[in-house]
Amino acid sequence: MMDLPRPKAGQPILDLSTPLPLIDEDVLSANIARVQAYMDAHGLKFRPHIKTHKIPAIAKAQVEAGAKGINCQKITEAEVFADAGFDDLLITFNILGLEKLERLKALNDRIGGLKVVADSRTTVDGLSQGFAAGRPLTVLVECDTGGGRCGVRGPEAAVELAEAIVSAPGLTFGGLLTYPKPDSEAQVEAFFSATLSALEARGIACPIVSNGGSPSLFSAHKVPSATEHRSGTYVYNDRSMVRAGHCGFEDCAMHILATVVSRPTEDRAILDAGSKALTSDLLGFADFGLILDYPEAVITGLSEEHGTVDLSKVTGRKPEIGEKVRIIPNHTCVVSNLFDSMTFQRNGIVTRVEEVKARGLVW
Amino acid sequence: MMDLPRPKAGQPILDLSTPLPLIDEDVLSANIARVQAYMDAHGLKFRPHIKTHKIPAIAKAQVEAGAKGINCQKITEAEVFADAGFDDLLITFNILGLEKLERLKALNDRIGGLKVVADSRTTVDGLSQGFAAGRPLTVLVECDTGGGRCGVRGPEAAVELAEAIVSAPGLTFGGLLTYPKPDSEAQVEAFFSATLSALEARGIACPIVSNGGSPSLFSAHKVPSATEHRSGTYVYNDRSMVRAGHCGFEDCAMHILATVVSRPTEDRAILDAGSKALTSDLLGFADFGLILDYPEAVITGLSEEHGTVDLSKVTGRKPEIGEKVRIIPNHTCVVSNLFDSMTFQRNGIVTRVEEVKARGLVW
Repeated sequence: MMDLPRPKAGQPILDLSTPLPLIDEDVLSANIARVQAYMDAHGLKFRPHIKTHKIPAIAKAQVEAGAKGINCQKITEAEVFADAGFDDLLITFNILGLEKLERLKALNDRIGGLKVVADSRTTVDGLSQGFAAGRPLTVLVECDTGGGRCGVRGPEAAVELAEAIVSAPGLTFGGLLTYPKPDSEAQVEAFFSATLSALEARGIACPIVSNGGSPSLFSAHKVPSATEHRSGTYVYNDRSMVRAGHCGFEDCAMHILATVVSRPTEDRAILDAGSKALTSDLLGFADFGLILDYPEAVITGLSEEHGTVDLSKVTGRKPEIGEKVRIIPNHTCVVSNLFDSMTFQRNGIVTRVEEVKARGLVW
Repeated sequence: MMDLPRPKAGQPILDLSTPLPLIDEDVLSANIARVQAYMDAHGLKFRPHIKTHKIPAIAKAQVEAGAKGINCQKITEAEVFADAGFDDLLITFNILGLEKLERLKALNDRIGGLKVVADSRTTVDGLSQGFAAGRPLTVLVECDTGGGRCGVRGPEAAVELAEAIVSAPGLTFGGLLTYPKPDSEAQVEAFFSATLSALEARGIACPIVSNGGSPSLFSAHKVPSATEHRSGTYVYNDRSMVRAGHCGFEDCAMHILATVVSRPTEDRAILDAGSKALTSDLLGFADFGLILDYPEAVITGLSEEHGTVDLSKVTGRKPEIGEKVRIIPNHTCVVSNLFDSMTFQRNGIVTRVEEVKARGLVW
């Protein structure tokens, strides 16, 4: 087989074959700077989630801008970033099972700043068994402050689990963590502050209080008990972030370049970007992304390699077969996960291609 | 970094770390045999779509069972399968653009049975320019028989485009093709037979008449003008195929093995399979897959690495933290596209691990 096609630095993006996600270097840098400045202004440590890009070079830019450590979701993701020189790694996942614990232990033995979370005695007991010998593992208590996913359900349960971690061989209590529902800062603060008081009364130090989430990104300062905030999507931004009021379309660093491959009717265009390029994540939208060049066009449906576009509301010129268009995806994090490499550009010229190093890592 | 984790032949599947898609060897073989027997019984050539598995070893089993050629969706997919020894390759896509045409030409020059589709003069003209020298390229006319995606809109337009292909330097007219809407066999037959009559009247031979689609799989015999049928999903099957009445849950070869990582409340379980394992394809369902072991449980939401399960309707025992469950995905083709390798099993023991060779190929 011939080498897989890959853009080269210096190529005009309109010469590139599609479908292809592109990252605007200047928008990327501005996004990193803007959110870091917000966190700095409020004295919050910022821990970017790498799930959005899965690229060590971007995480380096985030840390150079002032981020303290990074957030991973899988052990093998953390391994990739440890290899790239990162040390302060938080894996926000309940890790269970012998094989995973062995790999986690190997990782913990080679870097100093590994942290994980737990929300049950079962998870804590498993971690404790796995880490009874060697360097202790730092474990945070995950709290369900209303998000309705993982987490202990109230301050009392949080304190109880913290005590279990404190007394578990091989473990060090690292603090509290939540992935909150949007607009629930008062609830998060109430949960954290009640838990912190109770921990203090028991003489248990709580070094990290970690709040998170992109939907609540610019409300992070309304949770004064938090010592840090975690967010991923801000680095590229997407249609959901524009809807949330966090940015404009001009702040979306990721465009999916696609080509019109068919115009079967006056009102229908077919793109070469389907669910295997855009994903079927709706995130509450009724359609599958915004075509920047034709904002009145609607991507009504995706099959795996085709996107069906309704042009009936397009008042001016309509796109022709062979024409390239730029799409802002509903959700950028899931797009990154589909591509082995990411193409960067500035002013329409390719600057570099980065391997999406942590893509497709099973766990 | 340590080697990426990968199951080994002989391991019990319940020892494997999750999330992990598994293929049952016996169900896979039975699915291949059953659909081939149906096509054979009706004298239809069968052309499996490899988008579902993207694994040459499975396509070999399909061809050994009697399939005539295979269906790809991208040039680089076709390259992978040409390298694996396949010769009769149909790419069901309008191919546009210089870089793609160059690669397509290189592929056509090395194998004899390459075919593509076109539904516009723009595409035909581009193909003709690209193939003016060297071995001619076979081009089928894609027909919109009601599916509403790509395709010329009526028999007259189909004949017109066929004539354009016949007279275009570098191209050979290969026949007709459609991706129909479900339950529209009469419509498909009417389109095909009218076009065939008109072509015959003009003395244009039409070697291939290709019908397709999994939703209409077992109605393929109701389109007597068709010479072949294309389908992908049947090889693994999934929840959408069960709903369509094409199989039972016992015929679903792909299970996603997942672990319960949290049980925050009596009625909520959290799995380690989210949209990066199951995808967010709903295909008309309201939830994100069927948990075989707890059919009353409902996967109500996915974040990227977590699945949220409502257990309120589970009458018996509820799953515990650390327990592994098997999920039948809504749509199997998109799951294959997320994983670099696929694990096969028989009676709960790993038989082999195959690379998903054509995964993540950009175009």
